[in-house]
Amino acid sequence: MNSEKRAVGIVGVTGYAGAEAARLVLRHPQLQLVAVQSRSSAAMSLAQSVPSLAGATDLICSGEDAPDAMAGCEVVILAQEGGAAVRTAPELLSAGQKVVDLSADFRLKQPELYADWYGFAHASPHLLEEAAYGLPEMNRAYIAKSRLVANPGCYPTAATLALAPLLEAGYADTTSIVVDAWSGISGAGRASKAHHFAETNENLSPYKVAGTHRHTPEIEQALSIAAGQSIRVSFTPHTAPVTRGILCTCYAQLTEPVTAADLRNVYATRYQHEPFVRVVQNTLPTTAQVRGTNNCVIGVEVDARANRAVIISAIDNMVKGASGQAIQNINLMLGLPETAGLDALPVWP
Amino acid sequence: MNSEKRAVGIVGVTGYAGAEAARLVLRHPQLQLVAVQSRSSAAMSLAQSVPSLAGATDLICSGEDAPDAMAGCEVVILAQEGGAAVRTAPELLSAGQKVVDLSADFRLKQPELYADWYGFAHASPHLLEEAAYGLPEMNRAYIAKSRLVANPGCYPTAATLALAPLLEAGYADTTSIVVDAWSGISGAGRASKAHHFAETNENLSPYKVAGTHRHTPEIEQALSIAAGQSIRVSFTPHTAPVTRGILCTCYAQLTEPVTAADLRNVYATRYQHEPFVRVVQNTLPTTAQVRGTNNCVIGVEVDARANRAVIISAIDNMVKGASGQAIQNINLMLGLPETAGLDALPVWP
Amino acid sequence: MNSEKRAVGIVGVTGYAGAEAARLVLRHPQLQLVAVQSRSSAAMSLAQSVPSLAGATDLICSGEDAPDAMAGCEVVILAQEGGAAVRTAPELLSAGQKVVDLSADFRLKQPELYADWYGFAHASPHLLEEAAYGLPEMNRAYIAKSRLVANPGCYPTAATLALAPLLEAGYADTTSIVVDAWSGISGAGRASKAHHFAETNENLSPYKVAGTHRHTPEIEQALSIAAGQSIRVSFTPHTAPVTRGILCTCYAQLTEPVTAADLRNVYATRYQHEPFVRVVQNTLPTTAQVRGTNNCVIGVEVDARANRAVIISAIDNMVKGASGQAIQNINLMLGLPETAGLDALPVWP
Amino acid sequence: MNSEKRAVGIVGVTGYAGAEAARLVLRHPQLQLVAVQSRSSAAMSLAQSVPSLAGATDLICSGEDAPDAMAGCEVVILAQEGGAAVRTAPELLSAGQKVVDLSADFRLKQPELYADWYGFAHASPHLLEEAAYGLPEMNRAYIAKSRLVANPGCYPTAATLALAPLLEAGYADTTSIVVDAWSGISGAGRASKAHHFAETNENLSPYKVAGTHRHTPEIEQALSIAAGQSIRVSFTPHTAPVTRGILCTCYAQLTEPVTAADLRNVYATRYQHEPFVRVVQNTLPTTAQVRGTNNCVIGVEVDARANRAVIISAIDNMVKGASGQAIQNINLMLGLPETAGLDALPVWP
Repeated sequence: MNSEKRAVGIVGVTGYAGAEAARLVLRHPQLQLVAVQSRSSAAMSLAQSVPSLAGATDLICSGEDAPDAMAGCEVVILAQEGGAAVRTAPELLSAGQKVVDLSADFRLKQPELYADWYGFAHASPHLLEEAAYGLPEMNRAYIAKSRLVANPGCYPTAATLALAPLLEAGYADTTSIVVDAWSGISGAGRASKAHHFAETNENLSPYKVAGTHRHTPEIEQALSIAAGQSIRVSFTPHTAPVTRGILCTCYAQLTEPVTAADLRNVYATRYQHEPFVRVVQNTLPTTAQVRGTNNCVIGVEVDARANRAVIISAIDNMVKGASGQAIQNINLMLGLPETAGLDALPVWP
Repeated sequence: MNSEKRAVGIVGVTGYAGAEAARLVLRHPQLQLVAVQSRSSAAMSLAQSVPSLAGATDLICSGEDAPDAMAGCEVVILAQEGGAAVRTAPELLSAGQKVVDLSADFRLKQPELYADWYGFAHASPHLLEEAAYGLPEMNRAYIAKSRLVANPGCYPTAATLALAPLLEAGYADTTSIVVDAWSGISGAGRASKAHHFAETNENLSPYKVAGTHRHTPEIEQALSIAAGQSIRVSFTPHTAPVTRGILCTCYAQLTEPVTAADLRNVYATRYQHEPFVRVVQNTLPTTAQVRGTNNCVIGVEVDARANRAVIISAIDNMVKGASGQAIQNINLMLGLPETAGLDALPVWP
Repeated sequence: MNSEKRAVGIVGVTGYAGAEAARLVLRHPQLQLVAVQSRSSAAMSLAQSVPSLAGATDLICSGEDAPDAMAGCEVVILAQEGGAAVRTAPELLSAGQKVVDLSADFRLKQPELYADWYGFAHASPHLLEEAAYGLPEMNRAYIAKSRLVANPGCYPTAATLALAPLLEAGYADTTSIVVDAWSGISGAGRASKAHHFAETNENLSPYKVAGTHRHTPEIEQALSIAAGQSIRVSFTPHTAPVTRGILCTCYAQLTEPVTAADLRNVYATRYQHEPFVRVVQNTLPTTAQVRGTNNCVIGVEVDARANRAVIISAIDNMVKGASGQAIQNINLMLGLPETAGLDALPVWP
Repeated sequence: MNSEKRAVGIVGVTGYAGAEAARLVLRHPQLQLVAVQSRSSAAMSLAQSVPSLAGATDLICSGEDAPDAMAGCEVVILAQEGGAAVRTAPELLSAGQKVVDLSADFRLKQPELYADWYGFAHASPHLLEEAAYGLPEMNRAYIAKSRLVANPGCYPTAATLALAPLLEAGYADTTSIVVDAWSGISGAGRASKAHHFAETNENLSPYKVAGTHRHTPEIEQALSIAAGQSIRVSFTPHTAPVTRGILCTCYAQLTEPVTAADLRNVYATRYQHEPFVRVVQNTLPTTAQVRGTNNCVIGVEVDARANRAVIISAIDNMVKGASGQAIQNINLMLGLPETAGLDALPVWP
């Protein structure tokens, strides 16, 4: 192991998000992947379970015992099924390790929301209070000094980056917000049995509509902070036959007339120092622009006929929507340059 | 020619919509395709220009002179570029032929909208007045006695079928309507040079956002009739990498609380005699369900947390959104069974 | 039930091939679907398990007991897992019913091949002898008088139609035959868990190479009959990210120089009366040309530099490669027009 | 400009291969992109014409005058249309610059082949003699000391890496070689108008079959060198609906019986020091494994029943098949580590 690099471990490394985290850590100039865990691939080499990593790592997946397996890691990325990190994270924190959790286990501040939306009573409400919500564009300073970061969901990342400046600036009727979002199929996870190619290809499909998707309270929590008041949104997720990408089209009634140019200025100013957010004009965001990158591209439009802002954001659900953002958070937590290991350009076409 | 069949011609037969109309007429039990026209394929056999029709027709495409080419046709389907039917349709009507126009040339009732949205002064405003808007579910009786039918746009078909019952029943705040729609790439037409596979695949892409798409006034015209008042909507079209299909997710603030079950009853009653509209429950519309068919599947949901109706419709943009609806209109105009030639089941998977 | 229609049943109706058979029977002018069976969807409505059939049938799937469930059927289509028809078919035949089996259970004439390639000792070798191999272009007369038809595999259908005329005419060095074939993902079946969209999309993938795929002996059996001598081929299957279609490129060293034009004449003559086979020139077969149809398109080329014939065939694996061919066989078995219910044109684009 | 980096220019930068070269140079630790040229985007910013590069470069495309535009470059990558480099390269070489040409203009050693296959008399036959064929695995030493490198075609790269060890070892009947190859659509180039998504999706399509594709003599030239004798092959290219990737399945009659394990050893030994070639066992090459990377994965199989080797290779046609190999060649020409700037892991899924 390179002694100048910081040791990272990944629990749940053979799922899509875990594998993506491994890809990023393996090519990060200041991180070293030293331990990986996977229940389904216990004792198998990581490269056998995730063939895209062949030649890049000799690590063997450990099985059940996550904390032991992660001994020696300064930071651990948890990429497990929902509900597992509530048990795993406290042990790692007790051992003095920093934790970035990709699940929803520490994202919501109100413990009772876990019962309502996830069906379990949260066992560590004190950690909910402590955990930093890992959206650096909203929460950078706190993340940097945290030992536990709750990495945001893919849809909440796209929706919050799209709508926060509008809400912060007070331009939106907060009762009017619609978040219409489309995701690639990798968002369903490697274990999904519901996404046979033959049934998914050539199909456009909504799911968990009308406020029933679990990302709803997370979006509302983030947007409520931005607005300074409690907000409810209508969030509708859909899938299209692409592997990666989220395209999020957000609508809000304007409280006062504003031009698209003026609104773009609000966004450009808000994000001027953000390395991964780009506000476009004369063009519109597309997911191909961000594929494989940690970038978020935002288009700011005004439908003057209907007095409505239409804000569109595009991210790669596996990178800015998951593992890339985790690396961004780790960079902050370890005092590394925020963009380290995250400068890939999109492969095009 | 089968003497019992009714003679049909197609102008602009080698575009996607023209070819789809040809496919449907060639397998229609009571229609006979007797004349086809195409400028780009003049003097070529139809089957050479549209290889999917090989073996099914020996027709040769005539070139420029549309009315002469269509002599002997009882009904002519116009599938030309926008702006052409304004010139072609009057000649055909003068010759005593019935016309179904797939372009927007006769869809809008207010002539001045053509200057605003299409950039030309409409040359036949009296025909605008006369033309039947060809959405049978809204306008069946008038279509049946018309000689000129303006076949609706693909997005307006999906949006109107989704929202009309809600507006007719008075449940919607008419200032709050958002129509978020996604289309397959065939909607761009065969001549599009902007849809190279390598740049379109694995991409989610909005276009003509914030009320700039030409289908906006058409949607508003249809929904205003349903609501009995003038309505403006925010309509945002997008493309996903599928060949066919429109998935339209519509949002409207409710004027009074209503359950999804009650709202579904409103829709089920409204469409109970419609052969091509199906209101689903316990499932959601997807485009794979309607691919290759003239069906529209509608899902009716209520986001009670936000007091908002979420209505989702799925159609095949080339069939119910174009050429299938044209056949449905011809069936009505000729007194044939409305479903004749339109009973295909979706190919699945 | 329409008394003039012939009663058909489908065992294993909720798999892809079973569902496709149901689609075809439901729109067949002279067949009536009267009974369906599915273990996984026992007691469910067929339209619930196969939503593409919604509105077209009220049939309920029976569960385990296939022969009882099929009482009253003149013909039964077996679309079960391999190995099941060996048990099911004899009972149906004993009850006086005709059977078309979509599995490989009755395709191979030599019983010992089942032990070698399928891992079971065949329990009904006398039925192997009796069963008609259901490729009408090779075996029409015998199929027409049979009570048991072994419907060919998808790859063998494409490969045999491509190579039989070449072998019958004696132009091929029979030791030199290579069959390189590519299939859509529906060929893997509905139960496949190995075809997650995210891992299948944007991937070209060989499998069961170097003579290890079970269709190898079936191809060799059919080609050996055509050649009048025992033949071995190198068959390599691959998958590409399409839902349907097989594109089969076959290579054979020529025994004597022949031009492409002359060879095309051999094919054109061989298939001149075949309603579903089309030999093309000036163009090449593609799967889009045959999608959703029972057609096979064949391109005949000669690589004069290498003295090699290159024969390319395209079929829809679910239609001519499975359920459409089953309908073609039933038409023959029942004395109906061979093309009845099989005249769909491909949906294009 | 970083004074330690080596200056690189790209002519034809807005085509797919040029843009890919720009992506790679912009992230290369020891190269600096200092000049770009594009006729179609003259005076436009590179990032406007290739939006995936937004934020990574401020370069403006120069227009017609390539040599002037490339002043100051140590190496120039030519990514123009075929036939242009014959004119451009001599001027750049005269100015003392090194050239890597992505077109076929300098790949073939026999000038008369240009008349036969490309339709022009080659204007610089002495440069044909001088140019290094840029396949490092076959020609590393000569590339390293060359000032003009003819970067191989995508299909020849895949076919040569697959077959060279077999031919070098003398195992193949050299009259029996079949190269059946499938490519993603990016191979058609950005200017292609024949690849509308709606007609390309869900389609498997052969093209330029039976020895008519221009890569045929290039494959034969490379394989003849490997075999030590003149070879002719049957090469058939096809397209599948993926953006990137070549999957090449090669067949050769064996001159003597050899097991797959033994043959794999031949390949493993041949490529043991190659950083970008990986010979697999217990698995098969797929294009997803190499997407976005400069790797070539090779599967070595023997069809013992037919006494035939089946060798399968997978590359990314835009990287190892084009611009990545150009960077590999530049690394060699400039004495840099061969893998510099080429260590990306495939994005998966």
